[in-house]
Amino acid sequence: MKAHTEYLWMNTAKRREYVNITDECARILKQSGIREGMMLVSAMHITAAIWVNDNEPGIIQDADDMLERLAPFNPSYRHHLTGEDNGDAHLKNLLTHHQVIIPITAGQLDLGPWQTVFYCEFDGRRRKRVVIKVMGE
Amino acid sequence: MKAHTEYLWMNTAKRREYVNITDECARILKQSGIREGMMLVSAMHITAAIWVNDNEPGIIQDADDMLERLAPFNPSYRHHLTGEDNGDAHLKNLLTHHQVIIPITAGQLDLGPWQTVFYCEFDGRRRKRVVIKVMGE
Amino acid sequence: MKAHTEYLWMNTAKRREYVNITDECARILKQSGIREGMMLVSAMHITAAIWVNDNEPGIIQDADDMLERLAPFNPSYRHHLTGEDNGDAHLKNLLTHHQVIIPITAGQLDLGPWQTVFYCEFDGRRRKRVVIKVMGE
Repeated sequence: MKAHTEYLWMNTAKRREYVNITDECARILKQSGIREGMMLVSAMHITAAIWVNDNEPGIIQDADDMLERLAPFNPSYRHHLTGEDNGDAHLKNLLTHHQVIIPITAGQLDLGPWQTVFYCEFDGRRRKRVVIKVMGE
Repeated sequence: MKAHTEYLWMNTAKRREYVNITDECARILKQSGIREGMMLVSAMHITAAIWVNDNEPGIIQDADDMLERLAPFNPSYRHHLTGEDNGDAHLKNLLTHHQVIIPITAGQLDLGPWQTVFYCEFDGRRRKRVVIKVMGE
Repeated sequence: MKAHTEYLWMNTAKRREYVNITDECARILKQSGIREGMMLVSAMHITAAIWVNDNEPGIIQDADDMLERLAPFNPSYRHHLTGEDNGDAHLKNLLTHHQVIIPITAGQLDLGPWQTVFYCEFDGRRRKRVVIKVMGE
């Protein structure tokens, strides 16, 4: 069994941003030399998520609208008593989930035809990490 | 380390449908010969999800009601500018999550007494795939 | 490849409770002797979840408020026709997701600086299990 670990540093220009990291995942897979196994892609911060969906700008905007509707930016969260203003980002993270597993088959990311891996930033404009770990043979 | 991969083809009669695939998972596990490890069950399309819950029809209907309330079928999504009408299905997929991992212990799916694996179709009446990958020994 | 499996028994005093189990995960990792791999932490019941976020009481309360807003305790769920009163707990479980994977790197839980692993109980005051499975080398 082999394991290969890399960390991506993210630093988005906007507070909320959805960044396609599929090519980075493919590059790391190649680096690992692993042909059968699983790749974990996991945000290491608690105000960002990983989402697999279609790379279609309308869907990204629809998802952002829904997350803002269900977990709105709002200064009245209890978390804000600590001096922070990002309570909504923690809740958007909960709804989206902070990680995915990509199956690795025959040396490829075994994704469906429209599956794209997105880093979802909910409280950006600062440096944050994603851990990518491939395990297999 | 062994890896075993199979693909299930799904084609539901209804637009939204919840299909119990636990027996298929057990069959694939047996096929793999793996006794200790993990099984990834992951929808390969972006308008379907995998959910583990109780096989009780009321719960399934309650979950469907909630998903329709939080991410309603609605022709005004931006995604619909592409000609599609399934914007809600992408959002329901986000809320449900598209994959689960089943632990494999002593050659069995290590599930709790009521845990049932469901394929959740949000835009059916077409052929779609689920990848099931078992990794272990 | 090695695999190590343990089960945590939970029994919360309150109906809804968020229990930090990060130290338990670290203890089980040490027990396993695994230095590179993945740890699955997965609730075995269908009314509990696992969530990774900040150990800040305001966030926990904000998350609980949101889950109660999106999936309220309510006697009218169809599931209640079975005699149960925990329909909301099944739906809160859906929104939170019942499992996470922790990457294991250099013998440590490879978590970000604020990442804390919580067991989220939505229908407590009874004995329930979490399966923790470490796989690697």
